[in-house]
Amino acid sequence: MKHFVVGVDVGGTNVKLGIVNSSGKVLSRSSFSTVAFIQTPETLTDAVCEAVVALLAKEGVSRSDVLGVGIGLPGLIDVDKGVVRLLPNIPGWADVALKRIMEKKLGLKVLVENDVNMITLGEWEYGAGKGIEDLICMTLGTGVGAGLILNNRIYRGPGFAAGEIGHAPLSDDGPACGCGGWGCFERSVGNKRLQKDAVVMFGKEDITLEDVYRKAVEGKKKALKFWEAVGEKVALGLIGPINILNPECIIIGGGVSRSFDWMKPSIEKTVKRRCMKTQAEMVRFVKARLDDDAGIIGAEVLIRHENN
Amino acid sequence: MKHFVVGVDVGGTNVKLGIVNSSGKVLSRSSFSTVAFIQTPETLTDAVCEAVVALLAKEGVSRSDVLGVGIGLPGLIDVDKGVVRLLPNIPGWADVALKRIMEKKLGLKVLVENDVNMITLGEWEYGAGKGIEDLICMTLGTGVGAGLILNNRIYRGPGFAAGEIGHAPLSDDGPACGCGGWGCFERSVGNKRLQKDAVVMFGKEDITLEDVYRKAVEGKKKALKFWEAVGEKVALGLIGPINILNPECIIIGGGVSRSFDWMKPSIEKTVKRRCMKTQAEMVRFVKARLDDDAGIIGAEVLIRHENN
Repeated sequence: MKHFVVGVDVGGTNVKLGIVNSSGKVLSRSSFSTVAFIQTPETLTDAVCEAVVALLAKEGVSRSDVLGVGIGLPGLIDVDKGVVRLLPNIPGWADVALKRIMEKKLGLKVLVENDVNMITLGEWEYGAGKGIEDLICMTLGTGVGAGLILNNRIYRGPGFAAGEIGHAPLSDDGPACGCGGWGCFERSVGNKRLQKDAVVMFGKEDITLEDVYRKAVEGKKKALKFWEAVGEKVALGLIGPINILNPECIIIGGGVSRSFDWMKPSIEKTVKRRCMKTQAEMVRFVKARLDDDAGIIGAEVLIRHENN
Repeated sequence: MKHFVVGVDVGGTNVKLGIVNSSGKVLSRSSFSTVAFIQTPETLTDAVCEAVVALLAKEGVSRSDVLGVGIGLPGLIDVDKGVVRLLPNIPGWADVALKRIMEKKLGLKVLVENDVNMITLGEWEYGAGKGIEDLICMTLGTGVGAGLILNNRIYRGPGFAAGEIGHAPLSDDGPACGCGGWGCFERSVGNKRLQKDAVVMFGKEDITLEDVYRKAVEGKKKALKFWEAVGEKVALGLIGPINILNPECIIIGGGVSRSFDWMKPSIEKTVKRRCMKTQAEMVRFVKARLDDDAGIIGAEVLIRHENN
């Protein structure tokens, strides 16, 4: 019986790995610096494969007990073919047949997926979205992305590009966006913009979102107000997706979600005021539960669904 | 062998019926005025049932050859339970168990569906969306709605309220909308607004969209420019849905779609300029093909899928 999945979560800073059992529990972890191996797709892929082998050895798991390896990367992934089309923040990756390369190196089944979809799969099966058939799993950080579970299945779109909730325009004269459009939702709630808002609100050039989070933990009024205002801005970008998709639940993850409890009331209030009645009454907002493990745990879901 | 489906399309003005064969062909049609029977849900339901019986008799189709009756209505429909939750423009309909009532009266299987979803099913299986797994079928008229086919299946949402593409806000200071929100897409491209735009552009108080359509047929420059501008406004409301859902195709139906050919170039140009690369390169814009029959033909798809 094959019991284990190895989950690999490739980020711009670190690569995190974990052995996950068939209940979605992470048994053992490792990680290494992405930057140290970023030179070419080959160097990074070799490092990932070596780390997989080392982690299995460390935990004493034999290959015959491994159902497969699921690897999530921040970019456009052809999941069916196992090809990395493009990683916007890791240079050199264009149409890399990662599944084929890793399967050959490892002698294990490999599936490749977009990182946000991997997190979504994890939260859906083992986290904040358990048992829910229709949900949006949003990550709020430098970028604003989402994975979509619709009709009890992940929805990737025919070009594997679905979920770009951060790139719906909220006004026709908003600031230019890296995506090529302008006025995008991400421009109003991405970390860079929130950071600027914090500088203005606190009048301190070097204040960080981490500082504002800590001030809120301490109960400082201005910080609580800051996160309340962020909640309202987050809600504005969710009106369209909520009216269009009528989700049962929106899971909020990513760095900013640490401040979820202070954002939630203003998110709910704004959605109630602006969304259509049925949609507004139905949707619930919940904080992501799996934190840094979501992407690794999602690999277990991806591999198991493929094998069922 | 049961070969036929009766499709019923309930509109605010007329109720249209048709017998549809298993190839999606409408063999025989009838219709009657909604307004004449609008007093109560009972009077309208009775009229529909009588019209179904009369149409079958006229065509000489016996009940044993009828797979079922599919009825589409303009409102919020619980498809699983067969209950009409609300029809915004037909008073008195609140939580009407239409499936149960009609099945008892007719002795035939009945399925109830939202009218735009019914059109979407028809266009997907027999019209402009044939063979496509992920599409948005938009109706442009007094209201702006859509049906969603995602992962090769209709997506209704857990509250049966999905597809409200007309109620995604395009600005935070736009005009108030009947949905309770403001700045909605529908407020910029619904018939009422287009009518006002036409009055301003042509300086004629009594000009209709029908007039502007005819002027465009005659090749009048100003009318062609009008529809080009409409196309641009339509595209602005589609940027978000396209980036979020990465559809292969957007079908445009409803009254305004008669002018599709003059709108298409500016829709394509704006989408190319504003949408994300993968999404923009993939999406195609096509005109609905089944016209007034779409809702009736959709009933065949609904009934057959349920029976497969």
